[in-house]
Amino acid sequence: MNALSHKDRRVLIVGLGLIGGSYAQALSRAGYEVGGIARKRETIDYALSKGFIGEGTTEVTENFVGRYGTVVFALYPHVLVEWIRRYQGMLAPGTLITDVTGVKVSLLRSLAPILRKDVEFVPAHPMAGRECSGIENSDCSMFRDANFIVTPAEGNTPQAVAAVETLARDMGFRHISRLSPESHDEMIGFLSQLTHCIAVSLMACKESSHLVDYTGDSFRDLTRIARINEDMWCELFMDNRDELLSQMDLFLGKFTELREALRCGDEESMKAMMRLSTSRRALFDRQKEIEEGD
Amino acid sequence: MNALSHKDRRVLIVGLGLIGGSYAQALSRAGYEVGGIARKRETIDYALSKGFIGEGTTEVTENFVGRYGTVVFALYPHVLVEWIRRYQGMLAPGTLITDVTGVKVSLLRSLAPILRKDVEFVPAHPMAGRECSGIENSDCSMFRDANFIVTPAEGNTPQAVAAVETLARDMGFRHISRLSPESHDEMIGFLSQLTHCIAVSLMACKESSHLVDYTGDSFRDLTRIARINEDMWCELFMDNRDELLSQMDLFLGKFTELREALRCGDEESMKAMMRLSTSRRALFDRQKEIEEGD
Repeated sequence: MNALSHKDRRVLIVGLGLIGGSYAQALSRAGYEVGGIARKRETIDYALSKGFIGEGTTEVTENFVGRYGTVVFALYPHVLVEWIRRYQGMLAPGTLITDVTGVKVSLLRSLAPILRKDVEFVPAHPMAGRECSGIENSDCSMFRDANFIVTPAEGNTPQAVAAVETLARDMGFRHISRLSPESHDEMIGFLSQLTHCIAVSLMACKESSHLVDYTGDSFRDLTRIARINEDMWCELFMDNRDELLSQMDLFLGKFTELREALRCGDEESMKAMMRLSTSRRALFDRQKEIEEGD
Repeated sequence: MNALSHKDRRVLIVGLGLIGGSYAQALSRAGYEVGGIARKRETIDYALSKGFIGEGTTEVTENFVGRYGTVVFALYPHVLVEWIRRYQGMLAPGTLITDVTGVKVSLLRSLAPILRKDVEFVPAHPMAGRECSGIENSDCSMFRDANFIVTPAEGNTPQAVAAVETLARDMGFRHISRLSPESHDEMIGFLSQLTHCIAVSLMACKESSHLVDYTGDSFRDLTRIARINEDMWCELFMDNRDELLSQMDLFLGKFTELREALRCGDEESMKAMMRLSTSRRALFDRQKEIEEGD
């Protein structure tokens, strides 16, 4: 039994990059009828040849778009907003729209004044990715251990939210949850964006090629995410600017506190911070061990 | 053919914790005659039962200590200095001494005025470890992929330096190199101590147990080393204080630069930093891939 009606099992993916391609692959495997829109013909051809989509086009036409009950936007946020502005007239009334964007509040703010009232946008964030991009790197197995977060917007219907959660379940996401757009952006600002800021700053500190031979795991661990798609991350940072600035300030405060304790030789404060950090991090280890033991 | 004479193949390990125990295990396997000194009888019994040592004691006596041509100190730095102060009279003339301490300049400064002139101290740093401690966690397989750094001190003889490198080779270290004590401490300040400061500060930012479900790899990667032995790390930080403070300031400068670019919406500066970070980190990936491809 599936919560989606016949028309909802026809899903259009707009943007066939790494995530859009993986969505298409996962949904096709799950028995959905999947269509795709991409800028380049090669992308469509690749998706067709791999069976990720049943049909695809580089031209946005009402005839094509209007046939789908669900549309997933796997685009950069500003491209998504531009698409809605130009093409939303082609969407069938009642279309369910969702997205994959990593920042929510600013997107909702941009869409609120322009989105048609007879379509419904349920924002979502699949927390999966790779260090590479492009449909040729698509691989829906990346969803298996990943979290999927729905961030219902004002006015979303329970049916539409449930439908997006069904999509996520059918794509194989491990853990599906709901957060408000604000809580989501705060969480992402801390867990993902701040950590990328730290990794980039650390790597920017010095020319370090002569250090490669001496690096242990700690430096490698802290800088693994320092390889970064600058266009995408810059846009995500800017879209979450106020929240990220306050997360950066929180970190700056703690780091400066540790620096001051060291400068003053205040060993008790240093040790207290290390004990706190150790006990907090232990929770993450236990959780991981439980997962691995599954 | 071995560079060490008969007497040099008798090695005494003072301090049978995680590293001392693993040294004992590795050297016994390599055919050395290994003795051990520890504070607790259980530690000696464990080391004997596992065949890590051929003999061991909790009492420091001239009869025992004087029989070894090589002595490895696997102790906290201040305990090492105290041991030398109290017991160095028991060392045989010509004894080769080495250590496993993570910070070098301050240790050499402490030992210089007190160390007997008829023994030779060659400082070394095995860059291996575990998140746990104690001889029961000893496992010399941790040396297999690890770096071993000798930091020759003023007045070290080529023979003594070569002898310590032979020990490292016989214990199975992958990469053995030499650095001055100053370069070593600068490198460790950046690669190891700064990264631990960052991880501890990040973990100290907020109570995060409710975030466990949402963490992707980036937060886990950056905080893996936030579980930390506060006594050991506090001592290492204090022993390398000036160097670590300047590494922390270097990082603070870059992080603040990124924060300012974000605050001002200076996307070009943000992207330039991300591009730099991406290209620098790529070197580490390539190196790692080459290693894994071995």
